[in-house]
Amino acid sequence: MTIEVDYQFPPGVDAERQAKVIAVGQTAGTWDERFAHREARLKSHLAEVVRVETQETGSLATIHFPEANVEGDIASLLVAIFGKYSMAGAAKVMAVRLGEDYGSRPKLGITGIRERLGVFDRPLVMSIFKPALGLTAADHGTIFAQVAHAGLDIIKDDEIMGNLPAAPTLERLAACRKVIDEVKEKTGRTVLYAVNVTGRADRLIENARELVRNGANALLLNVLAYGFSVLETLARDRAIDVPIFAHPAFAGAMCASPDTGLAYSVVLGTLMAHAGADAVLYPAHYGSLPFDPLQEAKIRDSLRQRNVFPVPSAGIRAEIVPQILTDYGSDVILNAGTGIMDSPGGAAAGVRAFFNALECA
Amino acid sequence: MTIEVDYQFPPGVDAERQAKVIAVGQTAGTWDERFAHREARLKSHLAEVVRVETQETGSLATIHFPEANVEGDIASLLVAIFGKYSMAGAAKVMAVRLGEDYGSRPKLGITGIRERLGVFDRPLVMSIFKPALGLTAADHGTIFAQVAHAGLDIIKDDEIMGNLPAAPTLERLAACRKVIDEVKEKTGRTVLYAVNVTGRADRLIENARELVRNGANALLLNVLAYGFSVLETLARDRAIDVPIFAHPAFAGAMCASPDTGLAYSVVLGTLMAHAGADAVLYPAHYGSLPFDPLQEAKIRDSLRQRNVFPVPSAGIRAEIVPQILTDYGSDVILNAGTGIMDSPGGAAAGVRAFFNALECA
Repeated sequence: MTIEVDYQFPPGVDAERQAKVIAVGQTAGTWDERFAHREARLKSHLAEVVRVETQETGSLATIHFPEANVEGDIASLLVAIFGKYSMAGAAKVMAVRLGEDYGSRPKLGITGIRERLGVFDRPLVMSIFKPALGLTAADHGTIFAQVAHAGLDIIKDDEIMGNLPAAPTLERLAACRKVIDEVKEKTGRTVLYAVNVTGRADRLIENARELVRNGANALLLNVLAYGFSVLETLARDRAIDVPIFAHPAFAGAMCASPDTGLAYSVVLGTLMAHAGADAVLYPAHYGSLPFDPLQEAKIRDSLRQRNVFPVPSAGIRAEIVPQILTDYGSDVILNAGTGIMDSPGGAAAGVRAFFNALECA
Repeated sequence: MTIEVDYQFPPGVDAERQAKVIAVGQTAGTWDERFAHREARLKSHLAEVVRVETQETGSLATIHFPEANVEGDIASLLVAIFGKYSMAGAAKVMAVRLGEDYGSRPKLGITGIRERLGVFDRPLVMSIFKPALGLTAADHGTIFAQVAHAGLDIIKDDEIMGNLPAAPTLERLAACRKVIDEVKEKTGRTVLYAVNVTGRADRLIENARELVRNGANALLLNVLAYGFSVLETLARDRAIDVPIFAHPAFAGAMCASPDTGLAYSVVLGTLMAHAGADAVLYPAHYGSLPFDPLQEAKIRDSLRQRNVFPVPSAGIRAEIVPQILTDYGSDVILNAGTGIMDSPGGAAAGVRAFFNALECA
């Protein structure tokens, strides 16, 4: 298998030349007669410029990299396709096409999360603890009880809520686990709480295992701040037999520029889907962040192709449920933070508004 | 201690308003009367807009974040200051000012690397194995012998050379360790070989320990592809008692845009220096990549302030040694890949050319 990458160059850049610079500079580099006896071996690592097309917005070059140059993970892929070259001038990675077996797969994904919840025929409804910082662990339990008993499927920590002395992660889990057990006993329903797992890589991995041992039934990871290498570790760890929700925090730092970095659809779609996430959050174009509907559609499709749950987020309200259903159909998680938590009638009423909207639609 | 961050907005953006959005949206978020009894606690997490200045290139807003919002590491810092907001539109993080005790410190840094080498009074000379991919482990040993006996201080793997079947990392180390021991025996000199450590986070950490157990006397890490959380783990691991060289691969994805992402000086200067790197590579403005001399100077100063060795790289040649000495003085590592390896007289002559240039200057 080769790895196929589309690079976009702004008007005025000699794309033919830059494509060759990438194909050689990001692989074997140059060599001279001293290495003539190794020429076959050197050439086996070279990338190949497949085509260069001039478009209205600039040029698009497609390059094939040998899979032998990388280690089957996301980090070595990023270094190979855009390591040094990311610093070479204006160029943006618009698409990465990987073999089906490249990377990791979700342990649970859409089908596994549906099985855990016992919900197969409708979108899932998710919310976020708000306010983001300032609540105690007991507050988390109180809020969770309101929304869980009202029918919510999933709740997650706010991404900026780490393991802080004011509300330690294990204490938040204990307060919420109690609610999970109550709901299960009373209704038979499972409610997931995606606990934000943080810390230096070694501790984060140990923290994740400890959370699962203590009853966490889902995890949240800020993949782009902590590293794809951390997500891949959690995804491959058998002790972590719960779904991992990938958060897009920091994605704009590498995706928001029109001329540099990588497309959102690459980072939040292709790479997340090949790194083992079970569900991926990303901005929805209906929402409170500016987002391109075409990028959103690409993310949705890349994720679903590998059984990963798409979670359009940020500014999701009950009023736009019909539009989401048109765009997404049933295999989607409706993630509403303030859309549920700041509901005028209270958080429980916010949850019921989403289920009413789903029934009407 | 507070965390002070400068955000730059392009002309036309209401910077006063955006600064308030950051100060609230990236911290507590909003709350209503239900949380009135927790108001003091919520307010303790709010960030504060210190000033907003309108400049020629747009506006600059300075915001103070409570250190209580984060966990003393880089990943939680990135989520707190630029997690969701990175996706909110055009804004660039131009500076981050952290308390002296924030994060990690290098185990060795400038003074420790100099002690290991026994070289105190001149810049260090470093090279990179070239061609990047396609050499065998034995080739590495052969090339290393040439440059090490010619007086080189440090060599590193190319950043795209991972743990590939064609040249496994442990075999490269074995071939080069032999040379390190020969040079030591013959001349008393220590030569460092920074071995590229790769893999998923759990394996990478174990690989790093294994490399050190097997005689690695330096490591190379592609920090931005693998994650700051991984660098911080290695930096804090007592078993890894060798210098860690941080490579800037992928930095352009988050730094190359004028309007989004973070300044190179933040990522390759401030954050690397507070994440425990012993030496940090970055493009030099003399070199083959486009780079702003002001950013370079800021990186140099941020690193040295925490005893971290600056390693200006990419296109460094013996001819520009006098200029580097003017800009850097003695505490610098001169890192020449092709500048040494593609020297017309061979790699050993390339090393000698650098030492000649240092003596003349």
